[in-house]
Amino acid sequence: MKLQLALDLVNIPEGIALVKEVESYIDIVEIGTPIIINEGLHAVKAMKEAYPNLQVLADLKIMDAGGYEIMKAAEAGADLITVLGASNDMTIKGAVEEAKKQNKEVLVDMINVPNLEQRAREVDALGVDYICVHTGYDLQAVGQSPFEDLQTIKGAVKHAKTAVAGGIKLDTLPEVIKAQPDLVIVGGGITGQADKAAVASEMQRLVKQG
Amino acid sequence: MKLQLALDLVNIPEGIALVKEVESYIDIVEIGTPIIINEGLHAVKAMKEAYPNLQVLADLKIMDAGGYEIMKAAEAGADLITVLGASNDMTIKGAVEEAKKQNKEVLVDMINVPNLEQRAREVDALGVDYICVHTGYDLQAVGQSPFEDLQTIKGAVKHAKTAVAGGIKLDTLPEVIKAQPDLVIVGGGITGQADKAAVASEMQRLVKQG
Repeated sequence: MKLQLALDLVNIPEGIALVKEVESYIDIVEIGTPIIINEGLHAVKAMKEAYPNLQVLADLKIMDAGGYEIMKAAEAGADLITVLGASNDMTIKGAVEEAKKQNKEVLVDMINVPNLEQRAREVDALGVDYICVHTGYDLQAVGQSPFEDLQTIKGAVKHAKTAVAGGIKLDTLPEVIKAQPDLVIVGGGITGQADKAAVASEMQRLVKQG
Repeated sequence: MKLQLALDLVNIPEGIALVKEVESYIDIVEIGTPIIINEGLHAVKAMKEAYPNLQVLADLKIMDAGGYEIMKAAEAGADLITVLGASNDMTIKGAVEEAKKQNKEVLVDMINVPNLEQRAREVDALGVDYICVHTGYDLQAVGQSPFEDLQTIKGAVKHAKTAVAGGIKLDTLPEVIKAQPDLVIVGGGITGQADKAAVASEMQRLVKQG
């Protein structure tokens, strides 16, 4: 089980400084969609150059032009790139094909996908690397969480690794780990804490023994 | 009826140079998703500064954090911002609310939305400014077009303006105009032509008499 730190509300130098504090406790650092929108793939390139030993995920939430966008993200140094589960199968296929060529991984973000179980089976059959259940900000704000969704896809996915994101904190992490995802994605649960290193270290301990 | 030029496969200086050629024939210039992914909102800011009299659309394809992303795009000078029809109603509501505050417009991109007619009615009821049928690159590549989808939403949408995008060329423009959208979005139909100004000028003539 791996731990991913999601950065969303920082600029490039702030992001690089923040990762310094928790570098040894995380496996993957995510350049979140808000940073991509503000700064583009320049943020991915800067993070990979600052931390060549960390994997970098570019949260592009690709909805079209799957092959092209994977190619651009790979050029910038991304190791994993996100595609929306709500996108067309052709988009996911194009992304997977290009990612294999570039030796990168595709994570499909199932945010707001209806018929989650059915779509997870379909996406799994397209050869993606990760399928991620994700409760976005706008639904976290009305009290939703991704924990049940994780159970749902665990029962449906046969080939891909599974991931979970959306409001995970230190006190909810044990419940998440029980469902045995391959990747746990934490944002504010680390970045919003006073002692980021202490929280990340404890999360790493739980994830490694999970 | 308005004409929007979509820029996708250029960098910032190339985009600014390209718009120079067709500036007087278009109403809106779109900073397409591939440019946002490469350069971030810096591209929107640069385009608005270069052409303060043109409207600039930021094709963010927002899927989450609707209010926040609209705020950032507005700061960069965008006049119109896209949100995905596949996103949650809470995301669209947050986007619409912030756009009204900022005196900006929300265009909902219906790319890959199942049950198009029903979703168009729902999105229309959320108070968005434009509803746009859109055949993406990955489906244009297998021969699909947005013309039938435009008919479908024209029958369903009561309040919002309608828009159409996806492979529109000079020879298919008359067919599109017959369906009376409020906004026609053209990318390669202008940018891929040898004499961009001549094609854009003729498109403007057709759109204005449409």
